[in-house]
Amino acid sequence: MSKYVCKKCGFEADTDKWMWRCPSCGSVLDITGKVEAPKITLGEGDTPIVNLFGFGGNVYFKLEYLNPTGSFKDRGSAMALSQAQKLGIGCIVEDSSGNAGISVAAYAAAAGMWATIVVPQGCAPGKRQLIEALGAEIVEAEDRTAAGNRARELETRGCAYIGHQWNPWFIKGMEKIASEIRAQLKGIPDAIITPVSSGTLLLGLYNGFKKYKKIPKLYAVQASGYSPLYEALHEKNGDKPSKLADALQVSNPPRLEQMKEAVLKSGGDALVVSDEEIVMALSKLLKAGAIVEPSSATALAGYMQLVNSDKIKDKEKIVIVLTGSGLKYPEVLSLISH
Amino acid sequence: MSKYVCKKCGFEADTDKWMWRCPSCGSVLDITGKVEAPKITLGEGDTPIVNLFGFGGNVYFKLEYLNPTGSFKDRGSAMALSQAQKLGIGCIVEDSSGNAGISVAAYAAAAGMWATIVVPQGCAPGKRQLIEALGAEIVEAEDRTAAGNRARELETRGCAYIGHQWNPWFIKGMEKIASEIRAQLKGIPDAIITPVSSGTLLLGLYNGFKKYKKIPKLYAVQASGYSPLYEALHEKNGDKPSKLADALQVSNPPRLEQMKEAVLKSGGDALVVSDEEIVMALSKLLKAGAIVEPSSATALAGYMQLVNSDKIKDKEKIVIVLTGSGLKYPEVLSLISH
Repeated sequence: MSKYVCKKCGFEADTDKWMWRCPSCGSVLDITGKVEAPKITLGEGDTPIVNLFGFGGNVYFKLEYLNPTGSFKDRGSAMALSQAQKLGIGCIVEDSSGNAGISVAAYAAAAGMWATIVVPQGCAPGKRQLIEALGAEIVEAEDRTAAGNRARELETRGCAYIGHQWNPWFIKGMEKIASEIRAQLKGIPDAIITPVSSGTLLLGLYNGFKKYKKIPKLYAVQASGYSPLYEALHEKNGDKPSKLADALQVSNPPRLEQMKEAVLKSGGDALVVSDEEIVMALSKLLKAGAIVEPSSATALAGYMQLVNSDKIKDKEKIVIVLTGSGLKYPEVLSLISH
Repeated sequence: MSKYVCKKCGFEADTDKWMWRCPSCGSVLDITGKVEAPKITLGEGDTPIVNLFGFGGNVYFKLEYLNPTGSFKDRGSAMALSQAQKLGIGCIVEDSSGNAGISVAAYAAAAGMWATIVVPQGCAPGKRQLIEALGAEIVEAEDRTAAGNRARELETRGCAYIGHQWNPWFIKGMEKIASEIRAQLKGIPDAIITPVSSGTLLLGLYNGFKKYKKIPKLYAVQASGYSPLYEALHEKNGDKPSKLADALQVSNPPRLEQMKEAVLKSGGDALVVSDEEIVMALSKLLKAGAIVEPSSATALAGYMQLVNSDKIKDKEKIVIVLTGSGLKYPEVLSLISH
């Protein structure tokens, strides 16, 4: 039987009620105990791992952008929405301006649930249109913070708040990527480099590998201007805010302490990359045939930093996680590739 | 050792030269003998098969839209470009206004080859931008026919013409879908319903299942105005040409005779669906969480025709193939879903 646990205040509870954060101290919750595989599925997970043209045979790319709605978020949505359905929840609300909103809307549809997605004004029209196409209701808020507040207000009116940045089921859903990588590579890689915003994928990797003898060095790549993890481990980063990494624009991730632990205990690090580095990395990925979104290219930009500073050795087996599909960004991609 | 064979004139040749059609009679070629798995890969194939909300447990959806460039074409591109690389070809040319162009451009990039894609004027800007982003050169022709002619002209200047509608390797690359479906369902389904334009996927299914004891009934769904297979088996279809099914607008598929054989010998049929039926089907798919392109929804529209005319029984195990991603079509999808 699974339980909610709060590592901060020691709160514990059975998972027979919906909780997205600790009702006692307001901190993040985690799940312990046995967890069933998601019942609601759109075919998420078991994504390919490949070498790409122009990179060595020891560099593997984990293609999370081939998940059902075009991003790794689907792993978390499948788990969280399955749990919500198990508890008899018929209506959910979420705040997001992008991939998480599309993903939650799709899995709510797959579960036959009513969904409301609160988006900030100025949300990319294409992403908003996809959320609408999936049958979700859109509510607009002034900005990202207001969107979160509005979503939690709607929760009090009878809908369950998903809160993917907080939700312990969402994090739990990410863990399977670790066993997939281990099976695909027939062993555990030396390092994994992943884009990081609210840290759900980073923590999924860390928690997922903890059950094995070795945890790969986890390198968390953030975009300039949105680098709370980097700044918690190093100095302030004064570079101008990234415009390209639109999926990584999170300034206050609720699981920051856990993210620090994951990076430090694994022997990895946090990195920051600029839009110029993103452009270079994205162009290389596209010209190897990988149609990814700009935010995903941060991982390759981070890899290039590590290689240039000799922090990665030639013989090390590296996994670079490509998190989101570029099919939504034809115009941006064609400009960058030139 | 594999061979090219022409079933029309009996021509045979080793596969140590590049041929996209029979040099003797101009008809289509096929491959016989042992074929190696593609060496160039972007993670194509092994796509998920799922049930979807609102459909019975005997209705399975094969999610070909989760292939690396967002369509089933990647299976064919991987095989054809691998073969081209094996023959030392460093430069390819293809004509396409859509998914095949994106796919061939991506696999050419993955193979480190120079690619030119000839597109008809009026090609969707998003698709054209993706082709450019992948580093391919774009050449514009007046229409679809002119694009084919122009591409074959460029071939004579030292580039290999892929010609996916003709190419025997491209067809060969499609076959694996059959063994995947059989493994995923732990058996062979009673019927498979798939969108059809140049018939590569239909023939892949037919050829792939031929090695087993049973071939599922193959239902080929075409869009109104682009229904040569339907018209070859039934009467002329006078409905107005589909605008929505932009990936199915092929009037003269070179493998029409083979397509007829596949449908008839399997005990299936050809169907035509209108844009109104596509809208209904697409809306259902989106509201079950499947982000597909309009052309893919023809398969579900065809299924609905078959159910309504009692040609499919409740207990039959059905596979509906969803061929292309809707992530490229946010605006169209949001309009349709309302």
